[in-house]
Amino acid sequence: MLMQDEIAELLQEHNAAALLISQLPKVRQLCGFTGSRALLVLRPDQRVLLTDRRYQVQAAREVRYAAVVTENGSFTDIVRRHELLEGADGVLFEGDHLTVSVLAAWKQALPDYRWIAGTNLLGPALARKDQDAFKAMRRAQRIADEAFKQALRQMRPGMRERELAAAIACALLRHGAERLSFDPIVASGPNSALPHARPTDRRLKHGEVVLLDFGCVWRGYASDMTRVVALGEPSDRVRNVHEVVHRAQSQAMDAVQAGIAARTLDAVARSAIANAGLGEYFVHGLGHGVGLQVHEWPRISKISNDIVPAGVTITLEPGVYLPDAFGVRIEDTVMVTDHGCERLGTTQRKLFRVNWRETS
Amino acid sequence: MLMQDEIAELLQEHNAAALLISQLPKVRQLCGFTGSRALLVLRPDQRVLLTDRRYQVQAAREVRYAAVVTENGSFTDIVRRHELLEGADGVLFEGDHLTVSVLAAWKQALPDYRWIAGTNLLGPALARKDQDAFKAMRRAQRIADEAFKQALRQMRPGMRERELAAAIACALLRHGAERLSFDPIVASGPNSALPHARPTDRRLKHGEVVLLDFGCVWRGYASDMTRVVALGEPSDRVRNVHEVVHRAQSQAMDAVQAGIAARTLDAVARSAIANAGLGEYFVHGLGHGVGLQVHEWPRISKISNDIVPAGVTITLEPGVYLPDAFGVRIEDTVMVTDHGCERLGTTQRKLFRVNWRETS
Repeated sequence: MLMQDEIAELLQEHNAAALLISQLPKVRQLCGFTGSRALLVLRPDQRVLLTDRRYQVQAAREVRYAAVVTENGSFTDIVRRHELLEGADGVLFEGDHLTVSVLAAWKQALPDYRWIAGTNLLGPALARKDQDAFKAMRRAQRIADEAFKQALRQMRPGMRERELAAAIACALLRHGAERLSFDPIVASGPNSALPHARPTDRRLKHGEVVLLDFGCVWRGYASDMTRVVALGEPSDRVRNVHEVVHRAQSQAMDAVQAGIAARTLDAVARSAIANAGLGEYFVHGLGHGVGLQVHEWPRISKISNDIVPAGVTITLEPGVYLPDAFGVRIEDTVMVTDHGCERLGTTQRKLFRVNWRETS
Repeated sequence: MLMQDEIAELLQEHNAAALLISQLPKVRQLCGFTGSRALLVLRPDQRVLLTDRRYQVQAAREVRYAAVVTENGSFTDIVRRHELLEGADGVLFEGDHLTVSVLAAWKQALPDYRWIAGTNLLGPALARKDQDAFKAMRRAQRIADEAFKQALRQMRPGMRERELAAAIACALLRHGAERLSFDPIVASGPNSALPHARPTDRRLKHGEVVLLDFGCVWRGYASDMTRVVALGEPSDRVRNVHEVVHRAQSQAMDAVQAGIAARTLDAVARSAIANAGLGEYFVHGLGHGVGLQVHEWPRISKISNDIVPAGVTITLEPGVYLPDAFGVRIEDTVMVTDHGCERLGTTQRKLFRVNWRETS
């Protein structure tokens, strides 16, 4: 992935002569390096990756499309020593990633430059998936689908949320995930009414719902999905709320196509839920981009200004959370195409039920 | 944990009337909130936690020592609406955490304040562990010790690095970890010579070493340990290098006590390795603080200016990496006391050997 055009355009737009990228997933996409400390200096005629000596061997193995400097010490010193900003005047940096202290260090070390803060630099360009990325995303999703099947087989009343979360994590890793996208969320009964619950020691109970939100990474790319499972027969209330959320997600999915405004997409799902009288219980945005980062550009919410292009992968995850009762969220990842979208996973979007035979 | 004195002192030192903390582990320590979006506004006479409506129930459950505001929208708007900085002039913020863009938003929304960047704010105070924290750290370490035992039983030639890493992750979670401190590192043969290797599809081989670096979190507190295991009989070279690293770690452990300079500690281990002629292969610092964050204050390296106080927990992890051959790192976490230190784990610090019987 060279992106020379996008970089040139960005530099011109910001009246800058050099671009510094230090957000690691972006570094990885731009030059292949997967280490934990890196700075990429991009100029129209030069691309240099800086890292330290721990990564000497790894950088030599991994980096494409860039020269490599592996030296210990601060990046500011290395940039100065190798005159990597020589002749540049304006330097564009990631204002939404660089801390105030790091920028202060740059300004102190290299005071004769204009330091220009950009936001979400190269984000839209890097969010478009090529065939390899798309294949990796599908694979990450397939592993998640498998782990969900396994979770369905293992769930039973009496099991603790934390145990089930551990079982899902293990299933993801055993099926070949290189890591988890995030720690699995398992929220049972009233805990499912917490939109960002984390697994507790609470035991799953007959007659309650369990919300599962999880995903994994394959070759750097993340999956992310949510399903709700009823232990035993779900109540009418649960069934109804699930239907509403399902309808909201379906309508959003039908509305997806290249060029749509993210906030329009959010509004489609939001009005489906509001029409059922549950609007006040959908307390978060509809979704987000997924890729090398589990949350990346674009943001699908009512305050987003993003326009969704073809080739990006986004989640659609409407939810309804009834305090002290239960919550329902359904989340799928889709690839945006010119005239619609393609769902990555194969797990049904229904309200799952687990029944079991008493064995004790 | 109230820390009113430390906060008052910090404000005075920076000539500020309010302190903004948004680093999540710090927020958690200061008021108990464990959600993923938070801002803590601290003033001599007022402590307010801001989060959004997703966390309404959770914040009410968790937060101690602070008032809670759960509203959607930007924190700048909420701070303005509730006049939380009313009458303040200087506002101290985490310069090493806040991004340039976020600071710009604050300055734009509240232009009449002096914005003062601090570094590692409250870091030393928060790094001191109380009895509960220490107990949690011990428990996190005990789980890691157990997972290591299990890994020793499972390791065999032919197994892939990635499989073993998954097995370790599962063992940690099954033994009660709430999450991993980081994704387990399993590096076999020449891969162990990469100080920050990640598991690959490489298969473990008879006659090689395998380096395992892993840890987990219990009630928020992290463990972190590294051991090297020989599959079959280790070579003399491996044995010698392990002895050198072991000696370096032992000498550093003997030197630890409250009040020692971090760089002195680093120098003790570094000279032990240099004396064996291997100095150039110890390419990273000796260690780091561990607690709610797996890397926290203090930093134990040759460029650190930190002084190590009683009550902090730090890693001691010297390593020697022989390119294309193998690497050895031994890592333990110790609690610093007035006159020495206490090792948290019980796993021996030796070169482990795994032998097996061919069963196929």
